[in-house]
Amino acid sequence: MKRNTRDDIIRATASLMQQKGYFGTGLNDIIKESGAPRGSIYYHFPNGKEEIAQEAVKWTKDHVTSLIRQELGKKEDALSAIQLFIMDSVKRFEADKYFSGVPIAALVLETSSSSDVLKECCHEAFEEWSGEFTSKIISNGFKHEEAERLGKWINSMIQGAFISALAKGDGEPLRNAAEMLPVVFKKTENVRK
Amino acid sequence: MKRNTRDDIIRATASLMQQKGYFGTGLNDIIKESGAPRGSIYYHFPNGKEEIAQEAVKWTKDHVTSLIRQELGKKEDALSAIQLFIMDSVKRFEADKYFSGVPIAALVLETSSSSDVLKECCHEAFEEWSGEFTSKIISNGFKHEEAERLGKWINSMIQGAFISALAKGDGEPLRNAAEMLPVVFKKTENVRK
Repeated sequence: MKRNTRDDIIRATASLMQQKGYFGTGLNDIIKESGAPRGSIYYHFPNGKEEIAQEAVKWTKDHVTSLIRQELGKKEDALSAIQLFIMDSVKRFEADKYFSGVPIAALVLETSSSSDVLKECCHEAFEEWSGEFTSKIISNGFKHEEAERLGKWINSMIQGAFISALAKGDGEPLRNAAEMLPVVFKKTENVRK
Repeated sequence: MKRNTRDDIIRATASLMQQKGYFGTGLNDIIKESGAPRGSIYYHFPNGKEEIAQEAVKWTKDHVTSLIRQELGKKEDALSAIQLFIMDSVKRFEADKYFSGVPIAALVLETSSSSDVLKECCHEAFEEWSGEFTSKIISNGFKHEEAERLGKWINSMIQGAFISALAKGDGEPLRNAAEMLPVVFKKTENVRK
């Protein structure tokens, strides 16, 4: 099977950005890691590193969206499904302390003042992941507006819990987040349709 | 007044890491930004960039701890005090889209797999900030264990909300987080002493 150079470049960049951040990742590193010739990088990404990073964010976004959708499909009940998603994330996290793709949260913090294009890409990823939670909550009969607020809040809480878990070196902050969910769901049930 | 070179180096590093991340910040940048001679950097920080970054994290930790303590002192009631802290953070954020010091969350994501020393420093900062929330909650008569769980969760939720706010370019995720707090406090009240 023919190797897809463009994909190789994107994946190599995602991996490098995970290890060294956006500013720590140079075009030379990308060439070395991907094995792609310099010319093909300029061919596929005429706008350079920022453009490759955008694609790496999109790749990560799609990958994580599929994962969320797949996990949330495992249970009918939105609360149980989201808790399961978080607890499965804990398992993956504790198995190898690793999550694949660009750490979107890190990229936001690194580039929020320097690249509107990347910031917008990261915001789109958060919106898409929040949207998965929101849809699941709506499918359980919650009002659209409340479900959207809750979906966004859940995504944001998970981002924070992941960072605390990374700093702590164990999954406790994620478990803590999963345990807080029923309280918030119970309250929001009052505004079900 | 004599300038304190060591402090200049630490502050310059905090500022650089905010703009370019840990891996994007080189010793040459630190020399240029701080105005300190190369020799004095090696004199004050014989272990190089990692050691300066540690001090920059500690400086940020202390700065943010003071801010949290000051804000939480404004109201007796823990829930109102923490909500006020978050809403005041929104005001500062929306005024200049800026928060001072090292973005600890970014540093965690950048260095969690490469520097145990820095990861531990970042964890200590999170622990100290969580501890401020915990103490305030305990002062309102909550049981120690529940207060600690809630304090850690609040810090982690604020970290996540800050990142979402940075990506979105406005404070809505932080306001959303502040609005969710009463629900969780109400539930936790059941286990007051």
